[in-house]
Formats: sequence, structure tokens, C-alpha cells
Amino acid sequence: MADLDALQAELSGLKLETHPSLVKQKSRDFFWYSPVLKRRLDDVTGDLVVTPSSEDDVARVLAACYRHDVPVTVRGAGTGNYGQAMPLAGGVILNMAEMTAIRSIEPGVVVCEPGAIMADIDRRARTETGQELRLHPSTHRTASIGGFVAGGSGGVGSVRWGGLRDLGNIVRLKVLTMEAEPRVIELAGEDIHKVNHAYGTNGVITEVTMPLTAAYEWVDVVVGFDALSSAAAFADMVANQDGILTKEIAVVAAPAAHDYFLRHQRFIGREQHVVVLMVAPFAMDALAGLVDRSKGTLTYRSDVTVAGDGESVPPAYELCWNHTTLRALRVDPAITYLQILFPYPDHLTKVAAMADKFGDEVVTHLEFVRFDGNVACFGLPLVRFTSEERLDEIVSVFETAGCPVFNPHRYTLEEGGMKQTDPVQLAFKKETDPKGLLNPGKMIAWEDPSFDYSSHKTYLFPGLHRA
Amino acid sequence: MADLDALQAELSGLKLETHPSLVKQKSRDFFWYSPVLKRRLDDVTGDLVVTPSSEDDVARVLAACYRHDVPVTVRGAGTGNYGQAMPLAGGVILNMAEMTAIRSIEPGVVVCEPGAIMADIDRRARTETGQELRLHPSTHRTASIGGFVAGGSGGVGSVRWGGLRDLGNIVRLKVLTMEAEPRVIELAGEDIHKVNHAYGTNGVITEVTMPLTAAYEWVDVVVGFDALSSAAAFADMVANQDGILTKEIAVVAAPAAHDYFLRHQRFIGREQHVVVLMVAPFAMDALAGLVDRSKGTLTYRSDVTVAGDGESVPPAYELCWNHTTLRALRVDPAITYLQILFPYPDHLTKVAAMADKFGDEVVTHLEFVRFDGNVACFGLPLVRFTSEERLDEIVSVFETAGCPVFNPHRYTLEEGGMKQTDPVQLAFKKETDPKGLLNPGKMIAWEDPSFDYSSHKTYLFPGLHRA
Repeated sequence: MADLDALQAELSGLKLETHPSLVKQKSRDFFWYSPVLKRRLDDVTGDLVVTPSSEDDVARVLAACYRHDVPVTVRGAGTGNYGQAMPLAGGVILNMAEMTAIRSIEPGVVVCEPGAIMADIDRRARTETGQELRLHPSTHRTASIGGFVAGGSGGVGSVRWGGLRDLGNIVRLKVLTMEAEPRVIELAGEDIHKVNHAYGTNGVITEVTMPLTAAYEWVDVVVGFDALSSAAAFADMVANQDGILTKEIAVVAAPAAHDYFLRHQRFIGREQHVVVLMVAPFAMDALAGLVDRSKGTLTYRSDVTVAGDGESVPPAYELCWNHTTLRALRVDPAITYLQILFPYPDHLTKVAAMADKFGDEVVTHLEFVRFDGNVACFGLPLVRFTSEERLDEIVSVFETAGCPVFNPHRYTLEEGGMKQTDPVQLAFKKETDPKGLLNPGKMIAWEDPSFDYSSHKTYLFPGLHRA
Repeated sequence: MADLDALQAELSGLKLETHPSLVKQKSRDFFWYSPVLKRRLDDVTGDLVVTPSSEDDVARVLAACYRHDVPVTVRGAGTGNYGQAMPLAGGVILNMAEMTAIRSIEPGVVVCEPGAIMADIDRRARTETGQELRLHPSTHRTASIGGFVAGGSGGVGSVRWGGLRDLGNIVRLKVLTMEAEPRVIELAGEDIHKVNHAYGTNGVITEVTMPLTAAYEWVDVVVGFDALSSAAAFADMVANQDGILTKEIAVVAAPAAHDYFLRHQRFIGREQHVVVLMVAPFAMDALAGLVDRSKGTLTYRSDVTVAGDGESVPPAYELCWNHTTLRALRVDPAITYLQILFPYPDHLTKVAAMADKFGDEVVTHLEFVRFDGNVACFGLPLVRFTSEERLDEIVSVFETAGCPVFNPHRYTLEEGGMKQTDPVQLAFKKETDPKGLLNPGKMIAWEDPSFDYSSHKTYLFPGLHRA
């Protein structure tokens, strides 16, 4: 058992928190969107929260924890849904919330510390230079850039730019290693993959350089359709319009849009399947023409004054990605979700087939993205949860139909990803974290190299540390 | 016969030019890239050049010409290669060169007069707002925005944004009609197609609103490969990288790149097939990784100081599109070209098959673009011209292989385009130009509605007016 008292003594002068309820608060992310993870991880907690304010502080924490064999789980804003930031083996929560410096904003690039909140980056980039980040999750207002890089995959903006995994969507990273004397490693180009979406298992990100793009006064648009297939076809067609600048295109089936988007409810009929978009203002004439041609109804556009009580509505990006799930959960706690890729080119056919197969049990929610150069879509369907077994069955139906599932009811990189070892990330972990102290339990390839993915068994981390 | 003296008298106070050699100079565009058009159109001339300085001037010219039944051919900078601006029936050349006002530059949009030169628009947009036009031809330094909209199709930037035909790439147009009392018509959304690429046959553009995008210090890059297929595969792969911001991706086969790009010759081996790119500076690390992975050689990048005599080289966009042809023509006057679409998804297979079939007679030059949402490529091959019959044969081989040819050896919209009537543009001409005085001879659908495209006969305008 690690000597936490000795560790604390060594860290004196740093901002520490040991009060169990406060530590537990900082030991949780949004894993609870999954009833499966909720059951498994609800009692997980770290032992100690350390809040560094500089790279030197981080190095000091890592060296001390290395010496005392204490696990370290890095925490951004805790908005992940795969349990990315849950300290499965206890130990130190390295809370990056105070490393928020934005070091420079130049044409096309921002350099900042990992704890910077994405909305803050965008606010400054917009005010100072008319720019904004290419990609952000629906938790734009609260998520940190480092957490996004370490635990995210894409989101709003992916319809234009693809995902974080795509070369060019992260410019440069600085990471610290978990060694007796932590080293700084700079990663650029293809090397970025070593750390992107590795949940902080193989290095602690201390500086992030991200590409910026032009900021616009995005128009939030909701278009209604009588048929789900028409909504999906419209979304796909607009995403394929190379000249129409959009930042977000999502489809939500009836009656979920009406029933769950409470503050937009007055704009959406219960029978309407909707497409939610963010559109550059100068593209609205072109978009309106496409809506007409597709026999859709433009039920809401944020650039046109809305008659009525003047009640404000949330931005379109808070109707999308996992905010769709969140809004559904608030109305109906029995709802959970999945994350599925419908691959190009027969994504719309597969969407229709799955919608037919599952009916009300799995309500269609699609997010259109560029994927390897083509437009495809992710499904984040709203799933009526009955049992873990049934959820696994649903997953398996999607996978059998050729739709890979990034299962958000698993806490490992592999099970939430490609169901195979990522040799590059594993090799980098061997180099940066020889003792395996960074976010233990998340990389099966490290914990159990002989794990058999074809068994379809859930990996259960033996070192799980509960409150 | 029209009474030109009476017309001139009515236009007194406007800037007029009647000297035959000066009129002839303003009656010519870059039609002479085609030996076929050169033979047919070399003697074509207008009778009178009028240079308006305002929309009111334009209206005055159109009203007077309508009254006197004088044809009007609008001229931008005369950089078209399809004879777009050649006054086949003589009459007035409406020279827009002095209507160059840039009225406003806002986030995402510029409003200007049609004679504004694209390089001037970009210079002002960049200096004042860090923006630039999405698309421009390789004649960026000299081409006018109105000419581009009326006679162009895309070019540099199309790898990101598609072509001018794509909704959203032109925001709004103002046109004047050719009637007793010219009317102003404003076009937006899908209506823009009425006038875009109609060669000024159905309205005179007097104001253009174009989308702007973020300007960067684009890095000009040349990558060499041993095999043409490797160069094409690399170009296609980079174009499909959603996160790597590029503005231009072209392929030029060996030994053309070495032999014709004289000021880049020292960077290019005679055996090298090259890919020419414009890349955002912050994407260069990612690009360099892809070059390595593809076993290419980064032979030139403009962001790295070049040892040597410090001689300047032209920008990458002047190695591309029809500047490739121009550079070849300068070295070897027997060269001409074609414009061919290699459609997605088997564009690379078709490129290889055609390169095999023709050998040195048709040297591969590809321009990668987004086309209907996917990456495809145009071919602008360098063709060793022997006879008109052989050129037609080559065209027919491409078309039979499923590669539509936009034949630059024809001066009509239809033959240089989709080989069919464009009913929308024809209907708009009936409305805006009842007497058929705007750029006569260019729209077959107007001149000879019974023309049989399946005959593969060249349309010859009976009213051709020679010097």
C-alpha cells in the first residue's frame, strides 16, 4: 500500500484536497449516462486531489507519485462519458482546472494549457482575431481542451473537419512522462496519435496547440420533416454540399425532438423528425433553397426574430451529440445511448434498417461527420434501457450489421474503441509510464495483454478501488 | 445593319473606343490556348468598346444597344480560355475594367463591382480582415471577379470548396437585363445558377457578393514521386484528409514538371512526377509525415529558406490549372490541352488507364477537387496537337471511358459544358434578353433549339463577325 501521508508531505506547498466527499466529487465524470458504468463505478474514488498551477508542479507530482507508486489519473473538466477520468485504482486525481493559460493566438493556431475551457478559448480567439476552434464537444461551455484531446473524439465541427484522430486537427502536444525524473516530450504530425484519445494513460498533457478556423455568427437552424428518411437524406445532402459552410448537422427522430428539447418544443411538432444545423450566415439563402427543394419546414432559425415570449433557447450545439442524450435523460431517466458508426457509402440504408428493426426501443439520433474524406454519420441513439444483457444484444445487432459500436458502457480504451490493441499507444506507455501508474485499468493491452476480444466478455479491472 | 454612328452619338459622355486595333485587342481573350478556336476566331472583333464606370452607365449602354439592335459582349479581364468574351457577332464590347469598387468586406462576405481584380480583392480582404476568396483561377493576379462568375468554374480552392456551380460559393448577384428599360434583378440561393457560367448571355452582372474564408500564409509545396500512380494516390489521400487544410493539390507527370516549370526546374528531377500543393502553415508537420509515409520527396517548400541564388519562383497557383498549360505552351507551342472530369470513385483507375492508352501524346495533369461531396479530379492534360480530327478522337476516347470532357476547343456553353440545353439559363435569357443581343452565338439552345448533340458535330455560329 502506498504511503499517502509521505506523498502528501512531499507535495507540501501544492494545492491538495483530501476531504473524502470533495475528493469523490473530483473523482467522477459523466460516466453515469451509462446505467452499466453507473453500477460498476459509482463508488470509485481517488484518495487525494492535487491541483497544479504549472508544468513544474505537474513534474513534481509525477516524480513523487512515481517514487511512492501512487496511481495518477488526470482530470480535465470531467465531462467524459466513458469513465475516462475515473480513478479506478484510487490514488491522485491530477486536477488541471487551474492550468488555464492561453499562451498565444495566431492566424490558424492557439497554444494553451490543458485546463483552458473551450468556450474561454473561443471567446478570446473570436474577440482578438475572429477565430474559433474547429471542433468541440456539446459540453463546449465547461469542457477543457486537454480533456478533449485526451478523452474526446470530435463533435461539433466534425461535419467539416472530421475528428480529432484526423491528422491536422491537433497541431502539437507537450506531455510529461511518469518517471523518476519526468521528461517533457513534444509531439507533432503523426506522433500526436500516441496521446490523442489515450485517456491520459501514457503521459500528462501540459500544453496543447490546436488549429483555429474563422469564427462566424453561426445560425442555429431546425428543419422539420414528415419522414425520418427524408430528414436523414436532407442532412446527408447538405453535408455533401461543399460550398455550404456548416458546423453541425444532426438528425433526431420524432417524437424525441419535441419531447426532449423542452425549450425548443414550441418550434417542433410531435410528429416532426428534425435536422438541427449550425450554418454560416452567408449560406442561409442557399440553405433555405435546399429546405424548399427537400420539402422540409424551416421551423426555427436563430437569425430571425422569434415572435412570442422572448424566452431564450439553448444553442443548437446543446441539442446535439451527448446533449441530446442528456436532454432525454432529464425527461426520462430510463434512457441511455450508444455510439455507432454508420460507414460510408451505405450509411443511410443502414440507418433505415436499424430504425425499422428496433422501433421505439432505439430512437434514431444521427450526427453527420466527415470520415476519411467522405460524409458518413454516427448514431447516438436514445436507447430505452431494460437490462445489461439486452443492451449487449443491441450492440451486437449493430455490429453484425456492419456498424462498429464505440461502446459507452465500457471504461477501457479498447472496448470503447476499436476492440483491439493500439500498438502505438501501448509502446508509448512502455516508454512514458514504466510502472503503469497513469490512469490504471483503462488500457487492456497493458493490464492483460492476453485478453481475448473475440470472447465478447467485458473486461473487468481487478484493481478497482472503491470508496 | 445596326446604326453604330447613331449608337455612338447616344452614348456620348461615356468612355468609347473605336480604333480598330484597340477594339480588336479588347475583343480577344485567351481562346488561343486552343489551336481550333485560334483558327476559327482569330479574326473576330467587336466594333466599339464601351467602358462604363457605374451601373447607370451600364443601363444606358444596354438601353441604347437594345434600341439599335447592337449585340453586347461583356468583358472582364479577358482571361477565359473558351472564347467566353469573344464578340462573335461584333457590336459593343462592354469592358467592365473600370467598375472595380470593393463596397464592403465583412466576416465571410465581400461585395464588389464585377471588374474588381481577384488579387486586389484578396489583398484588401487580407489586410483589413485576414480573409480571402475561397476560389480563384490560376490567373488570380489579372482575372476579374465578374468574369470568374460569368465564365469560370472553379480552380484554386476547389479542393476544399468545390466549384462555383456549388451552392454557397456565390452569395448574391445583381444583374441588369437587356431590354428597352433595363431592370435590376437580384439573385441569391439556387437562382444564382441562372447567371453563373452563362458567359454573360442572359444579363449583365453589376454587383457580386462572394463568400470569404480565412486567409493564411499558404505554404507552396512540391513533392516528387518515382511513379505517376504514387503521385496521384498521394494527392488523392491528402485531399481526403479532412483535418489537413489545403487550397490546391495538382499532379503533373514527368518530364513535364521539370521541362515546363522553368523557374522550379532546379527543384524537380526530370524523372519526377510531382504533386503541387498549397498547405496551411500549421498543417505542414502533418503533411511532412504523410510525405514520408508515402515515400515521396519534399523537393520544395516555400516556408523553408532556399539556398542558392535567391531567384524568386512563381507561386504554386501559377503552376496549376491552365497556368500549367501556359507554361507548357511557352516551351512547346505545339501543346494544347483538354478539360476532363475523372469522376469519383474510380477516378484514379481511369487516370491510370488513360495515361497508359495515350502515352506521351496526352501528358497527365490532374487537379483534385471536391465534387458533389467527394474528392475527384479534373484532368487538364497537355496534349500534343496534330490535327482537329485527332483531338476529337481523343475527346471521344475519354468520353467513352466515362470521363466527361468540358471541351475547351468549342466556344458554346453547351459544347464546353454538359452537351445539353440548360433550361434554367435558357428561360432566364428569354426573360432578360428578348432580342438575343447578349453575347450572341454562345448558347446553342437559343440560336438553334433543334441542334442535335448526339451528331457530335461542332456547332458553328452562322453570324460569326470577322475583322
